[in-house]
Amino acid sequence: MCELLGMSANVPTDIVFSFTGLMQRGGRTGPHRDGWGIGFYEGRGLRLFQDPRASSESEVAQLVQRYPIKSEVVIGHIRQANVGRVCLANTHPFVREMWGRNWCFAHNGQLADFAPQLDNYRPIGDTDSEAAFCDLLNRLRQALPEPVAVEQLLPTLVSACAGYRQHGVFNCLLSDGDWLFSFCSSKLAHITRRAPFGPAHLKDSDMQVDFQAETTPNDVVSVLATEPLTDNESWTLYQPGEWRLWRGGECVAQGITD
Amino acid sequence: MCELLGMSANVPTDIVFSFTGLMQRGGRTGPHRDGWGIGFYEGRGLRLFQDPRASSESEVAQLVQRYPIKSEVVIGHIRQANVGRVCLANTHPFVREMWGRNWCFAHNGQLADFAPQLDNYRPIGDTDSEAAFCDLLNRLRQALPEPVAVEQLLPTLVSACAGYRQHGVFNCLLSDGDWLFSFCSSKLAHITRRAPFGPAHLKDSDMQVDFQAETTPNDVVSVLATEPLTDNESWTLYQPGEWRLWRGGECVAQGITD
Repeated sequence: MCELLGMSANVPTDIVFSFTGLMQRGGRTGPHRDGWGIGFYEGRGLRLFQDPRASSESEVAQLVQRYPIKSEVVIGHIRQANVGRVCLANTHPFVREMWGRNWCFAHNGQLADFAPQLDNYRPIGDTDSEAAFCDLLNRLRQALPEPVAVEQLLPTLVSACAGYRQHGVFNCLLSDGDWLFSFCSSKLAHITRRAPFGPAHLKDSDMQVDFQAETTPNDVVSVLATEPLTDNESWTLYQPGEWRLWRGGECVAQGITD
Repeated sequence: MCELLGMSANVPTDIVFSFTGLMQRGGRTGPHRDGWGIGFYEGRGLRLFQDPRASSESEVAQLVQRYPIKSEVVIGHIRQANVGRVCLANTHPFVREMWGRNWCFAHNGQLADFAPQLDNYRPIGDTDSEAAFCDLLNRLRQALPEPVAVEQLLPTLVSACAGYRQHGVFNCLLSDGDWLFSFCSSKLAHITRRAPFGPAHLKDSDMQVDFQAETTPNDVVSVLATEPLTDNESWTLYQPGEWRLWRGGECVAQGITD
């Protein structure tokens, strides 16, 4: 299994604190030694850092922890391989261009008996996760030949995710840089931080941050993770089958599938 | 204008030496202050580092210079913006998945009156370079619905490049991770290093490397650059209209268009 990290904010925000917590689980406080990756949107551009090595030992991960990249949407992942060998091509998040935007995807879980038809988007590596991502984009493209608002994508998106869930565990994060879509089949948590901001303390590292000193009163920042990253705040757990759409730090749509 | 850097090798080889030379031209010995990027293939995976900041001041560039990533195919680029503002989405190299492989592209030059039709692949940023890359992939896909050997791609590839050249300056590097295709409309140089290896000295930095100490007798490494990177070796200059296909460090096909 793997762990997911997502962020949606209404101002460019650095995710160094949460990323530091997640990285500890990559070989130190957790067993996810088989690579890690994180994508930061900068406008329509996407800055992607990945390494098939354990995050707790990766020089690139150290750079990301030192380097306060500010972004409004972030998707991160640490991997404990089950399907697909340990290599760069199998390292999340996965990226494809659709409709002139970077689509970024990360998956936690495992799908059995899953062999979608090859179409426009094809997997480069051999994970079930990338196969699901390609299938998802192929379905969206078949359903909607030209770009539409995300609200019009939601029925196809949610129904595809509900379908993948029939094959096993399917927790995922997906974004086109504007919005962040999240689907929970078994485990996902979120927290929204807004004024008055307080201190937060990482579960996985003796690190504390006072968000009051780092933010303005109008900032809204939501963080999503497989398991809560801090031990002194109140995270909300998703229900199995629950999806949420985030934009500018706020949950703008949500629902539960059977 | 911009500068290109390419490498094709028959063993995983680090490009720290050539990259260090190129990076100096990004704001120190050259005027290319508007970003830089480099893609390293690792099997079918592609490790991409990019920054819209000047390479001579970029922390990510410093990491890449310290970090001996070994690869058989590399495409790098430093940018002096002419079309498209300075931002991550306009930073080369550009990447798309086609036929289950990562295709990576960088361009030096400028195209006038160039507005290809939007099709399957669409630009994310607003450079003429990314528009040409998307058009090139759309043409390949239209001509060849399923993957073929690169030799069968060459006629479509070369004819598309010859067409872009009619719109201005079009020097480019393109790879799917297996081969490296290069097209010169005005300026490109290459050198193939093989045993007996000797010392090389960078033009743009007081740095010397003895390749003898870094290689085995069977290594073959070709480096391509807009202008020769070393001042004590003999580089070959491309002719205008010349293209070359590299694989495993060797030039495996070449030709000249009108």
